[in-house]
Amino acid sequence: MKSRLMSVLGLVVFLGLGLGCCSKCEQGSVAVQTDPLPSWNEGAAKQSIVDFVARVTDEAGPDFVPASERIATFDNDGTLWAEQPMYFQLFFAIDRVKALASEHPEWTTEQPFKAVLEGDMEALAAAGEHGLLELVMATHAGMTTEEFEGIVLEWLVTAKHPKTNRPFTEMVYQPMLELLEYLRANDFKTYIVSGGGIEFMRPWTEAVYGIPPEQVVGSSIKTKFEYRDGNPVLIRLPELDFIDDKHDKPVGINSHIGRRPIAAFGNSDGDLQMLQWTAAGDGARFMLYVHHDDADREWAYDRESHIGRLDQGLAEAEQRGWTVVSMKNDWERIFP
Amino acid sequence: MKSRLMSVLGLVVFLGLGLGCCSKCEQGSVAVQTDPLPSWNEGAAKQSIVDFVARVTDEAGPDFVPASERIATFDNDGTLWAEQPMYFQLFFAIDRVKALASEHPEWTTEQPFKAVLEGDMEALAAAGEHGLLELVMATHAGMTTEEFEGIVLEWLVTAKHPKTNRPFTEMVYQPMLELLEYLRANDFKTYIVSGGGIEFMRPWTEAVYGIPPEQVVGSSIKTKFEYRDGNPVLIRLPELDFIDDKHDKPVGINSHIGRRPIAAFGNSDGDLQMLQWTAAGDGARFMLYVHHDDADREWAYDRESHIGRLDQGLAEAEQRGWTVVSMKNDWERIFP
Repeated sequence: MKSRLMSVLGLVVFLGLGLGCCSKCEQGSVAVQTDPLPSWNEGAAKQSIVDFVARVTDEAGPDFVPASERIATFDNDGTLWAEQPMYFQLFFAIDRVKALASEHPEWTTEQPFKAVLEGDMEALAAAGEHGLLELVMATHAGMTTEEFEGIVLEWLVTAKHPKTNRPFTEMVYQPMLELLEYLRANDFKTYIVSGGGIEFMRPWTEAVYGIPPEQVVGSSIKTKFEYRDGNPVLIRLPELDFIDDKHDKPVGINSHIGRRPIAAFGNSDGDLQMLQWTAAGDGARFMLYVHHDDADREWAYDRESHIGRLDQGLAEAEQRGWTVVSMKNDWERIFP
Repeated sequence: MKSRLMSVLGLVVFLGLGLGCCSKCEQGSVAVQTDPLPSWNEGAAKQSIVDFVARVTDEAGPDFVPASERIATFDNDGTLWAEQPMYFQLFFAIDRVKALASEHPEWTTEQPFKAVLEGDMEALAAAGEHGLLELVMATHAGMTTEEFEGIVLEWLVTAKHPKTNRPFTEMVYQPMLELLEYLRANDFKTYIVSGGGIEFMRPWTEAVYGIPPEQVVGSSIKTKFEYRDGNPVLIRLPELDFIDDKHDKPVGINSHIGRRPIAAFGNSDGDLQMLQWTAAGDGARFMLYVHHDDADREWAYDRESHIGRLDQGLAEAEQRGWTVVSMKNDWERIFP
C-alpha cells in the first residue's frame, strides 16, 4: 500500500511539476504539448525559435543557460505593435495638442503646433526632429508622473488607428504575443527596449504584453522630486534625459538590466546595436528581425522607409545567419 | 477508490502548493512554520514586519496587495551591510589608486591621490566631495563594463575590513538577509536603491543578498557604446550620470522600477525621501529605519555622524509611527 501511495505521489508530483502546479509562479509551465506558437507558419523562422529555446533549457546540453540569465529584449514599435503611418506615440502627442489648444492660443500661429491643429502633415514633417521634440515636451511634461499615467490610459481607451479604426493596443502582433508567452513559459524574463517613451509604455504593457513596468526600458525626460501640499510627487520636466535608440539601446540595457540579453528581437536599423550587443556574448544566442513585407495585411517597407528603416540590419542579418521573419510568409495571422 | 485517490491528490496538491513544490519558482514558499526571522528578538519591530506581511498577503483581507505590486526597496550602505569607518566603496577606490599608482607618477604630488598614497585621511577628507569625485572617476572609469565587473569581483576576494579583518561581503547584517528572504518567500520583489555605484554592487548582490542585477538601482557614470576590433563594448566614461541619493532616490525608483514600493528600508536621512515616497501611496505601507545604536557589536551613530547621518529621518519616523530597529535590542546577532 505504501509503495502504491508513493507511486501515486510520484506521479502527482511529476504531473504537478510538469503541469504548472504552483499558482504563485510568475512564469507558469506549458500545460500540454500543444503548439505554443499557433500563429506561426511552419518554416525556418519558427523552427529557429523552438530550437534555440530547446537548447538553452536542456540542462544536460552544452548550451544550457540558467533561468536567471534568460533575458530576452524586444523593440516595441514595428516589433510588438505596428508603427505606420507614424509612431503611435505621435498620434498621442497630436491628440494632446488638440486637447490642450484652448489653453494655448499662441499655438494657432506657432509651429509645429499650428501644423498639428490644421492637420498639415507636410508642415509637421518640415518641422523635423526639433519640431517633434517641441511637441513631446509640450505634451509629455509639466505634470506629475501619476497624472501622466492617467492621461495615457485615458487616451488609449478612446483613440483609434486611422486606417483600421481599432484601438492602438489591438494593433499588436498576435505571433509576437505568443512568442513572449512561450519564452516566459520557458523561464525567460521578457523586456521591452524601445525608442518610445518609457512612461508612455509602462501604464499598459503588463495588460497587453504581460510585461511589467519594471521590465520596460525606453526614452525618458527628466523628473524632479518635490512636495505639493506636503505630499511628495515627481514632476515631469521638459528636458531630455535619454534617447533609447541605436547605439544607446545597449546603454539602456546595461543601465536597467545589468545583464546582456541572450535573445533580442527588432525590426529596424535602430535595433541593430542591440542585436550586435546580444550576439557578442558567450554561449547560445538568438537574434531576430521582423521584416515588414506584407502590404495586404499590414505594411511593406524596409530599406527606403523613413519609419522603421531596415537596411544595414537586413544585410547584417543575412550575412550572420540571424532569423529574419517574413510577416507575409511566416505569420498565419497578424493581429489578434 | 476514486474518491480516496482524489483526496490523496487533494492532499498532495495542497501540500505541493504549500511546500514549494515547484522548483522553477523564483520565489519559493516557506517549507514549515518555523520562525523566518530567527535573528530578530521578539518585540515591536519584528512584530510590525510580520503583521505587515500577513496583512498584504491575506487575499480575503482589506489590505491585500497582488504579488506583482509587492515591491520592497532597501538602501545598501548601513542598511544591508556596514558603512563604518567609511563607505566600503571608498576602500575599493583607495585600493585601486594604490594598484594604479605605478602608471600615474603624477599622483605622488597631486591631491587627492597624494593623500591616498600617503594614507593621510585628514588630507583626503579636506579634498571634500570634489576630491572624492576625482577618486571615483580615476578608478571607476576608462574601462569596459565587463572589465570593471572583473576588477570589483577580484577586489572583493582579497580585500578585508580594517577593523574585523573579514571580507566586506561578510559585513552584511544577518537579520536583514533573513528579512529579504522572508519577503521574497511572500512574493515580494526585493530591490536595492543605494547611493553606491550601481555597477559596483551588481556583480555580487545576487550571491550575497539574492538580489539580481536588474533589481539594483544606484549611482552611475555614463557609458558609451563603441566597437573594439569589431566587437561592441560599453566604455565607462569619467562623467557623472546620476546620484541616487536623498530626493533622487524616488527618481531612481521611478526610472528603474516604474512602480511605487509598498515597503522601504533605510538607515539615514539620505533614505528619507524614499520612505516618504513609499508612505505616500495608497493602501498598506511599511517604512523601517535601522538605527545604529550598538557600539559593542557594530557602531553607534546617528544625529551627529558624517556617514549615514540619521537626524530628520529619526524625528519623522517617531512622529509618523514608522518602525525603528534598535540594532542593540532588536537583533539577536549582527553579522552572519
